[in-house]
Amino acid sequence: MVTRLSHFFLRTLREDPADAEVTSHRLLVRAGYIRRTAPGIFSWLPLGLKVKARIEAIIREEMANAGAYEVHFPALVPADPYKESGRYDAYGDGIFRLSDRRGADYLLAPTHEELFTLLVKDLYSSYKDLPLAIYQIQDKYRDEARPRAGLLRGREFTMKDAYSFDWNDEGLDASYQAQRDAYERIFQRLGLEYVIVQADNGLMGGARSEEFLHPTPVGEDTFVRSAGGYAANVEAFETVVPEPIPFDGLGSPVIFDSPNTPTIATLVEHANAHLPVPAPGIAGPATADATAWTAAHTLKNVVLALTHLDGTREVVVVGIPGDRDVDDKRVEVAFAPAAVEPATDADFEANPLLVRGYIGPWSETGAMLGEESATGIRYLLDPRVVDGTAWITGANSDEKHVHTLVAGRDFAGDGFIEVASVRAGDAAPDGSGPVELARGMEIGHVFQLGRFFADTLGLKVLDPNGKLVTVTMGSYGIGVTRILAILAELNNDEKGLVWPASVAPFDVHVVATGKDAAAFELAESASAELEASGLDVLYDDRPKVSPGVKFADAELVGVPRVLVAGRGAADGQVELWNRRTGDRETLPLAEALARLTA
Amino acid sequence: MVTRLSHFFLRTLREDPADAEVTSHRLLVRAGYIRRTAPGIFSWLPLGLKVKARIEAIIREEMANAGAYEVHFPALVPADPYKESGRYDAYGDGIFRLSDRRGADYLLAPTHEELFTLLVKDLYSSYKDLPLAIYQIQDKYRDEARPRAGLLRGREFTMKDAYSFDWNDEGLDASYQAQRDAYERIFQRLGLEYVIVQADNGLMGGARSEEFLHPTPVGEDTFVRSAGGYAANVEAFETVVPEPIPFDGLGSPVIFDSPNTPTIATLVEHANAHLPVPAPGIAGPATADATAWTAAHTLKNVVLALTHLDGTREVVVVGIPGDRDVDDKRVEVAFAPAAVEPATDADFEANPLLVRGYIGPWSETGAMLGEESATGIRYLLDPRVVDGTAWITGANSDEKHVHTLVAGRDFAGDGFIEVASVRAGDAAPDGSGPVELARGMEIGHVFQLGRFFADTLGLKVLDPNGKLVTVTMGSYGIGVTRILAILAELNNDEKGLVWPASVAPFDVHVVATGKDAAAFELAESASAELEASGLDVLYDDRPKVSPGVKFADAELVGVPRVLVAGRGAADGQVELWNRRTGDRETLPLAEALARLTA
Repeated sequence: MVTRLSHFFLRTLREDPADAEVTSHRLLVRAGYIRRTAPGIFSWLPLGLKVKARIEAIIREEMANAGAYEVHFPALVPADPYKESGRYDAYGDGIFRLSDRRGADYLLAPTHEELFTLLVKDLYSSYKDLPLAIYQIQDKYRDEARPRAGLLRGREFTMKDAYSFDWNDEGLDASYQAQRDAYERIFQRLGLEYVIVQADNGLMGGARSEEFLHPTPVGEDTFVRSAGGYAANVEAFETVVPEPIPFDGLGSPVIFDSPNTPTIATLVEHANAHLPVPAPGIAGPATADATAWTAAHTLKNVVLALTHLDGTREVVVVGIPGDRDVDDKRVEVAFAPAAVEPATDADFEANPLLVRGYIGPWSETGAMLGEESATGIRYLLDPRVVDGTAWITGANSDEKHVHTLVAGRDFAGDGFIEVASVRAGDAAPDGSGPVELARGMEIGHVFQLGRFFADTLGLKVLDPNGKLVTVTMGSYGIGVTRILAILAELNNDEKGLVWPASVAPFDVHVVATGKDAAAFELAESASAELEASGLDVLYDDRPKVSPGVKFADAELVGVPRVLVAGRGAADGQVELWNRRTGDRETLPLAEALARLTA
Repeated sequence: MVTRLSHFFLRTLREDPADAEVTSHRLLVRAGYIRRTAPGIFSWLPLGLKVKARIEAIIREEMANAGAYEVHFPALVPADPYKESGRYDAYGDGIFRLSDRRGADYLLAPTHEELFTLLVKDLYSSYKDLPLAIYQIQDKYRDEARPRAGLLRGREFTMKDAYSFDWNDEGLDASYQAQRDAYERIFQRLGLEYVIVQADNGLMGGARSEEFLHPTPVGEDTFVRSAGGYAANVEAFETVVPEPIPFDGLGSPVIFDSPNTPTIATLVEHANAHLPVPAPGIAGPATADATAWTAAHTLKNVVLALTHLDGTREVVVVGIPGDRDVDDKRVEVAFAPAAVEPATDADFEANPLLVRGYIGPWSETGAMLGEESATGIRYLLDPRVVDGTAWITGANSDEKHVHTLVAGRDFAGDGFIEVASVRAGDAAPDGSGPVELARGMEIGHVFQLGRFFADTLGLKVLDPNGKLVTVTMGSYGIGVTRILAILAELNNDEKGLVWPASVAPFDVHVVATGKDAAAFELAESASAELEASGLDVLYDDRPKVSPGVKFADAELVGVPRVLVAGRGAADGQVELWNRRTGDRETLPLAEALARLTA
């Protein structure tokens, strides 16, 4: 049935919405696709719903091609399974919790791992039942601290989440690959360029984890890639660990006065003024032919405070080369599920042995950092601080530092940790050369969950030997509404949206202009013919609206192909527009129809 | 793509679920359509989701035919608009409320009238924009006190709710008719017999209100209908009001001793033993040729306690003929939005002038019921208690009654109220004859909301004279998951479900039996051909499952047409089953395919 603009529920807006921070939000509201209902919560108008349905249809087809079956869980779910998995607490303020009239705890599910696991546990019992892949397309909820950027970071959003179930690791690898392949097909059909990057494995401790990122300078995620094909998000980047250096020939630690040097910059300046030039045996990792002290020769000790899930607070120190910073995302992932923040004055007061600005793992009186040291504070080192590297660092005494302090000889950490920032030029861990930094938007995530949920919730099956084994799972997510926003973000110009044909709300936008009945008759029959040939037509049949307004609306709404019946209508001539290229061509109606239905 | 049972996510169960109270719940769980997740909250398995999608597709098509456009509101909605309309409080414990991390109030929407109204207010401003009909298919939430009967009364359920917007009453009538017609088409396509009954207008005070009921003896709703075409649910039934009777010739009230007659039955027995036989002038409404006293001659005064929205409690008395009871549903609707319960001992203690068992509107000392009476208690009368009717009723004194107490002369109410039970034989209000009582299940509701929400939330448009007028709305609901359950309730036998073709999860269920490869090859090619011709095929290709198990599963799952490839496969013979009639026929494959695709 032809959709007539004279009746259709659509009002385009001349003004940008006041709260729109990003292009997609601005255009989707102005062109009548969505309306804001509450912070991060939107209502969908007919145009928006049609685009969303087309994206969902592509996902459904490719899920079916990957052998996955659709199910649907409630959005309102009982809290118990999420308490068993620990996520009810772990999400903190990030989820919506509520109680029913009897006082039973519920939540609005942010994801449904627990319920998928329990459903399969309910129905399946043997390796013969597996592999299984099931998915849902579902409205999900997260109580974001700062909902922003329209649909890109909302509190209610639509996701496709799929899960695979296998009884052994080989099975999981195959299931993972099938979903990964489906994701490639989905993004190809959506016309969405993507990079597959290694991602952090998260809390669940599975094996493979990859994100599909759309590379764009305005992306909110940073990732690294090498010319040789390595790609990872910064959280997952693994530092190449240098070889240890023999202790032979290394000098002894030397404490020196360093007045007014509480920062790395002031310390380096002081060293260049007062110390001998760096030489093997007294300097940090990057010294071989250094002619001056640099921040890379120093060991920066950063004091952090962790809040563990049980609420306890722990002060820890991380030691990283002074030419790098602690990366917020890497530190968040490295310490998860604990929350991390910089140590506060109160933390320092509780640890009076730490001399601010001059903290180091060693002092004249012995070890100062580490669980076995005088402070008892856990001390974690950057992987570059291998045995035999020599550093300038604080001497734990006011205005004093030490040089030629050798890792593995004079001090040691309680372990290593990947929290230092990644820089262009760092070596890719797979030996494929130096990396560059790039930005992208996350559009999908495939992830080997492993046995965390199956173990916690007791999902086991009999293996071929009749032995009970814990099922291993994969998790595969695509943000449907997020992808819609990204497509809008990528496909627009100064006049409005320009949808890819695969997801456009209509296939053809037919416009009748002028007061001539012939134009309306021609447009009417063109619309009917296009619909009859299976295309979805929006027909602008509004009788008393100027051509300028109609054209502006067509450009704003962004249907990729526009057919205009106007002046030439009496001679059977129409204009065919390509919204993307801007090409306009006058031709006989029959030819226009033939091209549109080709 | 053919769906293969060897991989499909389906497990049928041999046992009925322990908590299933109704057939639909029992069979939908056993046949693998749904699983219970929490009380009144269900997860949808692939089969269930497919049936639901087919019902939704029919609804979407008929909504489009009715000129309605689809939108989608969030399930999680801000409380403010619902506070403005009063529904946030009026729902009491019946909705799920929650707060976000900033403490803002939200609810899970039971329906979205407020948001529909505000959306149209946001975008529309002129009578030229109207009429408009928009709808959504949405998961809704009600915190039912007693979720029960599986999907029939759940706490999370899917509804199609449509709303129409017009600037005048004629427009509303046309919009209402278009939706009403669409509902008829929807139920016809679903194969669901229906009766359209007049329904109560509810709190919003609109004009027309009709329910679509499926007539069935196991329905939870009672309705009345006359041979002449009248139909209404009991809440909406309007009593035919008799003509008043002149007071001339009526005797005076006579108080008489009536020991041990606290009930209507004991009172009637006493009257027949001690009073003269009823005669015009001393008896109730049904007296003309009565030879004995009956309950119909008495006036029963029932004491109720109302709790108003503001929390205040009010004791009221309703006076109804003694041969009728107060009907729970009629009383609930008549006093809404106040909550009603029988008066408690505490209520009687607070009103010591009421003599329990002997309550009446009049005593020797004067008026005892009514706002102007000694008690000050509001007194509402059944419409049959017209002026000039004479009654036996309590004399407000222990063990005393009065007869020949004449309405309009000796006592009066503060108004009339429709709370008395409806009986078979009562006259239809439209003069179409006596009514009979029947039972049904509600499957849809069309309803002229009128201007309540538009008024409350300020939805006005300019009329043709440039004057601002308040928009008038219609509300049109269908419970999608409820209809699915009702279809399951109506379409089954002792072996399992029997879906109507219009909503079956698959069009054909192909079964390969035995160990003969020929059977599997034939079934395989039959499945492929049926899919190629546009049918949706479930193919039972499980290799080591007995024919008995396969047949039992096919019967339980309830696809209407089953094609079996077994013994005759080598000769190209298959069996074609009609699941509904049980007919089975052996025929060549080509002929079977021709019939299935006809």
